[in-house]
Amino acid sequence: MTRYRVLVEFDGGGYCGWQSQRGAASVQDAMARAIERMSGEFTRPTAAGRTDAGVHAVALPAHFDLAGERRAAEVQGALNHHLWTAGEKIAVHGAAQVADDFHARRDAKQRRYAYRILVADAPSSLEAGRVLHLRRALDVGAMSRAAAILEGEHDFSSFRASGCQADSAARVLESLAVKETAAGLLLREGATEIVVRAAAPSFLYNQVRIIVGTLLTVGLGRMSPDDVAVVLAARDRTKAGPTAPPHGLYFLSCDY
Amino acid sequence: MTRYRVLVEFDGGGYCGWQSQRGAASVQDAMARAIERMSGEFTRPTAAGRTDAGVHAVALPAHFDLAGERRAAEVQGALNHHLWTAGEKIAVHGAAQVADDFHARRDAKQRRYAYRILVADAPSSLEAGRVLHLRRALDVGAMSRAAAILEGEHDFSSFRASGCQADSAARVLESLAVKETAAGLLLREGATEIVVRAAAPSFLYNQVRIIVGTLLTVGLGRMSPDDVAVVLAARDRTKAGPTAPPHGLYFLSCDY
Repeated sequence: MTRYRVLVEFDGGGYCGWQSQRGAASVQDAMARAIERMSGEFTRPTAAGRTDAGVHAVALPAHFDLAGERRAAEVQGALNHHLWTAGEKIAVHGAAQVADDFHARRDAKQRRYAYRILVADAPSSLEAGRVLHLRRALDVGAMSRAAAILEGEHDFSSFRASGCQADSAARVLESLAVKETAAGLLLREGATEIVVRAAAPSFLYNQVRIIVGTLLTVGLGRMSPDDVAVVLAARDRTKAGPTAPPHGLYFLSCDY
Repeated sequence: MTRYRVLVEFDGGGYCGWQSQRGAASVQDAMARAIERMSGEFTRPTAAGRTDAGVHAVALPAHFDLAGERRAAEVQGALNHHLWTAGEKIAVHGAAQVADDFHARRDAKQRRYAYRILVADAPSSLEAGRVLHLRRALDVGAMSRAAAILEGEHDFSSFRASGCQADSAARVLESLAVKETAAGLLLREGATEIVVRAAAPSFLYNQVRIIVGTLLTVGLGRMSPDDVAVVLAARDRTKAGPTAPPHGLYFLSCDY
């Protein structure tokens, strides 16, 4: 048996997320089909984390085992071939043989996400389904101050979905940064892109999206940065902002 | 009669280009339908230039006339509404009322294009149809030296498609720059993005794509930068590199 790790990149539009679900198109099932076409072996790969429907990934680590040994480059090429011919919006990169006890989820030390917001008076066709489009300007300074309050170790009960099954809501948010750019190859004049980046050993269910929804509430002036401290202390989901839509969110990468 | 100018952004995948063509989906026809749904008036908008099938645009200026007068913001909002509900991958921004004699094509002073190349050992799913994917590294220094040779006023006969109907192949290429970036939000580790930017008052048919195809030939080491001077002097399309595929090309913007 040989264990392989790949980094999975996908456009989340059209998928129910990573996790296999009956009657829905998941990234995990698409990957399992590609592995089976390549090797004749059926195995479901294990990823560093689930992702919600519509959420994208740049480099989501996943591992799986094959009975025979193949070169990692060959595995990568074959999987991309089968994913491509099946019309999947999935590609794998960074393929490597790893130790038999490597575990993409359990061994992950830091996970990184980014959330893209386009502030423009008209929607974007090139970035449709890839950014959250807002017409109103955001107070990025206030968002940054609010973000600083959320950094560190806290009980994030206010920032997890009701369906979250984690025993404890204590998490260490290692960094949460808000950055605005007004120039970019595909960014039209007058538009700005705001990116929220978050890094932590692990996240609660919907934590990043609820944090972004709360930062947006601050950015729109409906909540002050200081209010965010009150929300955090309340340990009550109803006090935080809405869950930001999935299509602006990207799983960036993971450290081991 | 009131003349309006809009900046058209579109994902060129699925369109035969800007120009209306019988039996094909063009951006111009989709725009004309949206204008008609908004105003009840049928008029084909005029753009700063045609684009090839599959080529994208960030801000392609176009003008059209309406019998009645409407606020530019209202025109923009209504067009985006009708484009969106029709499922078009087109959006308009920067709408303005302009002088009756403004002409999006004839008055254009400078047109700017960019061509995106992703160098990575695996294809991209997030950027599929939006970048040219190459597996082999490119010599960006050599590409830059070749680009410098093409800048300025030249007879670009070697760099225009056989179907080009311009009387003269003399054009002023005001700038042609090659830039490499190894970091970006959506750029995976180990991958680089190379962007070729070109600016000129006007371009010949397929000129940017043939220039990029030639720069790629140089970047791959199959032609030296000095060879490009020979190609230019030859005034012979068969001496230049291939026409780069359309899906890496973006019409960026236009000055008046």
